[in-house]
Amino acid sequence: MNILHDDRLDGALPAVDKQGLINALTTALPALDLLYRAEDLKPYECDGLSAYRTTPLLVALPRHLEEVQTLLRICHQRQVPVVPRGAGTGLSGGALPLAQGVLLVMARFNQILDIDPCARTARVQPGVRNLAISQAAAPHGLYYAPDPSSQIACSIGGNVAENAGGVHCLKYGLTVHNLVKLQVLTVDGEPLTLGSDALDSPGFDLLALFTGSEGLLGVVTEVTVRLLPRPHVAKVLLAAFDSVEKAGQAVANIIAAGIIPGGLEMMDNLAIRAAEDFIHAGYPVDAEAILLCELDGVEADVHEDCERVRQILDAAGATEVRQARDEAERVRFWAGRKNAFPAVGRLSPDYYCMDGTIPRRELAAVLKGIAALSAEYQLRVANVFHAGDGNMHPLILFDANLPGELERAEALGGKILEMCVAVGGSITGEHGVGREKINQMCSQFNAEELTLFHAVKAAFDPGGLLNPGKNIPTLHRCAEFGAMHIHHGQVPFPELERF
Amino acid sequence: MNILHDDRLDGALPAVDKQGLINALTTALPALDLLYRAEDLKPYECDGLSAYRTTPLLVALPRHLEEVQTLLRICHQRQVPVVPRGAGTGLSGGALPLAQGVLLVMARFNQILDIDPCARTARVQPGVRNLAISQAAAPHGLYYAPDPSSQIACSIGGNVAENAGGVHCLKYGLTVHNLVKLQVLTVDGEPLTLGSDALDSPGFDLLALFTGSEGLLGVVTEVTVRLLPRPHVAKVLLAAFDSVEKAGQAVANIIAAGIIPGGLEMMDNLAIRAAEDFIHAGYPVDAEAILLCELDGVEADVHEDCERVRQILDAAGATEVRQARDEAERVRFWAGRKNAFPAVGRLSPDYYCMDGTIPRRELAAVLKGIAALSAEYQLRVANVFHAGDGNMHPLILFDANLPGELERAEALGGKILEMCVAVGGSITGEHGVGREKINQMCSQFNAEELTLFHAVKAAFDPGGLLNPGKNIPTLHRCAEFGAMHIHHGQVPFPELERF
Repeated sequence: MNILHDDRLDGALPAVDKQGLINALTTALPALDLLYRAEDLKPYECDGLSAYRTTPLLVALPRHLEEVQTLLRICHQRQVPVVPRGAGTGLSGGALPLAQGVLLVMARFNQILDIDPCARTARVQPGVRNLAISQAAAPHGLYYAPDPSSQIACSIGGNVAENAGGVHCLKYGLTVHNLVKLQVLTVDGEPLTLGSDALDSPGFDLLALFTGSEGLLGVVTEVTVRLLPRPHVAKVLLAAFDSVEKAGQAVANIIAAGIIPGGLEMMDNLAIRAAEDFIHAGYPVDAEAILLCELDGVEADVHEDCERVRQILDAAGATEVRQARDEAERVRFWAGRKNAFPAVGRLSPDYYCMDGTIPRRELAAVLKGIAALSAEYQLRVANVFHAGDGNMHPLILFDANLPGELERAEALGGKILEMCVAVGGSITGEHGVGREKINQMCSQFNAEELTLFHAVKAAFDPGGLLNPGKNIPTLHRCAEFGAMHIHHGQVPFPELERF
Repeated sequence: MNILHDDRLDGALPAVDKQGLINALTTALPALDLLYRAEDLKPYECDGLSAYRTTPLLVALPRHLEEVQTLLRICHQRQVPVVPRGAGTGLSGGALPLAQGVLLVMARFNQILDIDPCARTARVQPGVRNLAISQAAAPHGLYYAPDPSSQIACSIGGNVAENAGGVHCLKYGLTVHNLVKLQVLTVDGEPLTLGSDALDSPGFDLLALFTGSEGLLGVVTEVTVRLLPRPHVAKVLLAAFDSVEKAGQAVANIIAAGIIPGGLEMMDNLAIRAAEDFIHAGYPVDAEAILLCELDGVEADVHEDCERVRQILDAAGATEVRQARDEAERVRFWAGRKNAFPAVGRLSPDYYCMDGTIPRRELAAVLKGIAALSAEYQLRVANVFHAGDGNMHPLILFDANLPGELERAEALGGKILEMCVAVGGSITGEHGVGREKINQMCSQFNAEELTLFHAVKAAFDPGGLLNPGKNIPTLHRCAEFGAMHIHHGQVPFPELERF
């Protein structure tokens, strides 16, 4: 795939004395794994957002806290930028390297330090994979709730950096709602404890501030997460609709009825067909939209809720409602959803995955708006998303080898995110801002708010050495980008009929 | 009651030109209710922590956003400190006035602006009472979960400032877990939106940072809270024990069994007797400790959990386990608990309520430690607390009219909080730091951490005009107080046998 952007920021960073830095690091840390030859650096030039690529100056792969600490001190003394990275599965380019910076890979910190069933917590190193925590907790009947699609591979440190979500965050919250304590190192290698083993921590809530800060405030060295008791039973209902509006209304009605599903997902026709061709999940390929609604808890509770949800789906005009007959069918229903991205990827040489979030009452209006934009930009868009919490993932299909398609896809994506902001939503639900959505931050926030973000950043990292160019745009960049802050609902979007 | 402290901080603040400020405010805001005569100021000299009192310079009672904005601008121009206040029910002196500052009372902002059953949110003004939100949401089958004991009177703005908790926060979280969006004014009157109507908000999590910041970062002008569906049914079990250790172990066993009670409360013998004499709740007065365990949800679920909890209580050595036979008995069981503070107040001329939090595995050890300290300081201590989440409320009984008792009570309280920190806990669970625990913050955090707090504060309020002297101590104050930061478990506490 082509590269969407050259790295304008890197041009603005001062050149680093690479050999001097290598000498300083190898002298102080002779055992540190340090990569600096072009062929060794190649695998690290991007994260999960592979459209953006930069070859890092150096890659460091420490194994011990002291190595990270010394590395940070040396980089701080020499004013060298540092980009922290976990497993590199992020979808917004949050771990995109800098040509004039060190990529600090925390993947080797992969030990589970403690599972405490009484406190219901797990204390782990940042490189531990998300799913590995639930596997280690399983003997105690516990699990870690946030479940990004990448949970087999993604690391908990990266989850903290991006405040990762997943199918079940409607009921169980984002990463920030499932953390107890963090150990971090500041930009100059000082250790800090954020949060505590107790219910609450006095002073400002730096634990929450740090979560989702995308490596701009410090480096995570230890994570204590909250564990939950595994639900006794989970059932899933599949409902088909002849319009996306009806499906959107059904979502609103389920929530308004006081039911909190474990997951509530929507797919439109393009996504349904792609997934069915790929996975054979048993989806109705003629439906304009399907909903997958999972209910979990104790048997009687789930049984009662299934009946209520079925009635709501019928009343909302579902053309068909099916309950997975057994665990095998339940897993198959979910397999279609979980593989929808690669399935859509088979329809087109390239696709671009968006991550906007909207108030759920706006679902139908925004889906119609996306359809109108899709026609206007002459690019197909498939919708597969967390409908229950309004977290949309429009997938824009394009062919980077056709002149202009790449730029049109990017422009369409930007337009979709601005529409999300205009209805009172946000430019990200669970993928983060990273490098990808840095320009859309100028739409989301006004100058006053961005100034405050920079002041908070400066409280932790006055020199701006940690992951510069991600998450928070400079005011200068916003001026250059020409973005105007959209006051909620004040910018007319012809694609949104309700305006 | 006597006053525990004179206001050392106020002495350090520059004198304000009171008449000049009155003139400026009345000229700019002729309709603003402004109190400045000694007799009018008297009712505002303290909040719920009445042992600390200071007569404010002025009290402002605005009704409109523009009034607050103009008042903040004028105070900012004149460099006059401002102390925001809600209903004044806080227990840590967070709204204690300054002799050289304006007390900004937000109580008249008492409108419920919107209840949205689809989004499951309520948008309210900051002076709305906590309970009024649940009352307004009741027709939709929804409620607002955090329930401080003061919920009839306390305001949601104050709840945000102190990150308030309550009996049900074990299951439903603190205030920070139940907020969606805040509208605030900065120190110079600029409006900011923190959070969003969508699932997540990009950039740093300033919504969480603001929650619990005790008025140091800005003034809350609008709050959007999350609402939850009301549980179908709630049952309560009362268990008696012949030792507090056994009761503490039972708490740990219930949690470790994967059950999440709606509330899980403990009372010791002194508290049981006081509550029984006062309320006649039907408590067993010979028990060394009782537990109240509430289970809520759907009927079948609750029934099953009640049986499991009963077995765990029996196995842990409960001498008696009773389930409330009907709603009237359930309410009576809770009435004893909810009135335990005033009940204990009848045993002694004065009492001092602490608010430490500990990891729940330390419950038994810390209760023994408190008993040893109680003997050492020759002051009775009653324990009534949220056992499930380790949030302790030791009530120190004393007589302020006996020479030295007040100081001994304060010293004992400080010692208890330091013990909480030493076992990995914190100096506050739900009451906040305020003025009361400002010295104990020096035990909780090291100089590096406090410096970071000050840098974050400076990002919002560089001049330190908002609620100075609360929440975050200056390093100078910590040095003067002579406190050493306690590294977890490293300071020997002879009162804790496990050390």
